[in-house]
Amino acid sequence: MNDLILTTYDWVPEPPRGYVRDLRVRWALEEAGLAYRVETTPFEGRGAAHFEHQPFGQVPWLSDGDLSIFETGAILLHLAERSATLMPTGASGRSETISWIFGALNSVELASLPWALFMFAGDDEQSAGRAQFDPFLKARLSHLEKTFKDRDWLTAEMFTAADILMADVLRLVDRFDGLSDFPACRAYLARAVARPAFEKALADQLAHFAQADTERA
Amino acid sequence: MNDLILTTYDWVPEPPRGYVRDLRVRWALEEAGLAYRVETTPFEGRGAAHFEHQPFGQVPWLSDGDLSIFETGAILLHLAERSATLMPTGASGRSETISWIFGALNSVELASLPWALFMFAGDDEQSAGRAQFDPFLKARLSHLEKTFKDRDWLTAEMFTAADILMADVLRLVDRFDGLSDFPACRAYLARAVARPAFEKALADQLAHFAQADTERA
Repeated sequence: MNDLILTTYDWVPEPPRGYVRDLRVRWALEEAGLAYRVETTPFEGRGAAHFEHQPFGQVPWLSDGDLSIFETGAILLHLAERSATLMPTGASGRSETISWIFGALNSVELASLPWALFMFAGDDEQSAGRAQFDPFLKARLSHLEKTFKDRDWLTAEMFTAADILMADVLRLVDRFDGLSDFPACRAYLARAVARPAFEKALADQLAHFAQADTERA
Repeated sequence: MNDLILTTYDWVPEPPRGYVRDLRVRWALEEAGLAYRVETTPFEGRGAAHFEHQPFGQVPWLSDGDLSIFETGAILLHLAERSATLMPTGASGRSETISWIFGALNSVELASLPWALFMFAGDDEQSAGRAQFDPFLKARLSHLEKTFKDRDWLTAEMFTAADILMADVLRLVDRFDGLSDFPACRAYLARAVARPAFEKALADQLAHFAQADTERA
């Protein structure tokens, strides 16, 4: 078995802490019980070595032997193919999980991230952005809300990698109180973040950046 | 081998024609030379049967025997696992393709679709939205631009399913003249849409909706 190496920033400012996308990968690794180590790349001054692993200059990426994988969706799918704790092994459950992985990233996050960017922005931009993106996001969440009426997780069978991605997407919506009209989505998120693997992943990310502060001081 | 059935709308108004997402699936099926047939779901009045296949009430979905797959990323990945014309079979090329599939949908389209929504919108909203999303989209495209300096397609080896998704994402950017500062992206898009499989897929989508007009008349 190859060593798994997760690369994230060496440091980030306060606001994104707890939301840097290495969290999704840490969470999946903890759920799967796969050993890994963390390496870092500079947050300030992203060089050629960074872009070689991540063409958009983002984090994280995951090294697994000769493979260097970027995009959290691709990394979680890769880990799900290594561990039956993250995806059913049958064709139907596997296919359902993969559809929901893309559903989290290309249907929900595609609506929620623009919305969240406007929540960060100034008042004038915020109101224009909300006018455009509130209905877009709410339409997606109202469909998702129905999904959770009769199940705990996205696939009928079990908690999967898709739930890690969807829950992390919804965390950012909840940070700006965007789930108040969607009690089933909010209850789903609460179930997800109560998992010990999430708690460990979040604590590890926060400790990683706190350690970086100490080294800078 | 199971019959492949692609489901799309029975009709759509003029503006989205040529851009409805079944195009991505048609394109992949044509590249792979896989036989399929098209079924329809009502555009107006989306019922329970629709949401059973596509929880967000969108199109397309693909049936492959017992499997019903939603999200174009998941559908193209499924087809790529069936056909070596859409993804290299080696571990490295396969992994690179999957990273780029998510890169197209979660890094580029996540920036480009909000931008395009503002281009459709009224003047006031457009200027606020552009102020927010022009820099976001341009940052992503400037990174992508570098990728195409030394290669024709996203993975070094061959044209893949990731190129179908990325090219279709860029088509909508180009529709609003968003590629003028990115000549390598524009040249990439021109190479992609010159492929006979794209031309066939586009002609088939346009013919499908034109036929629907005839039946309504």
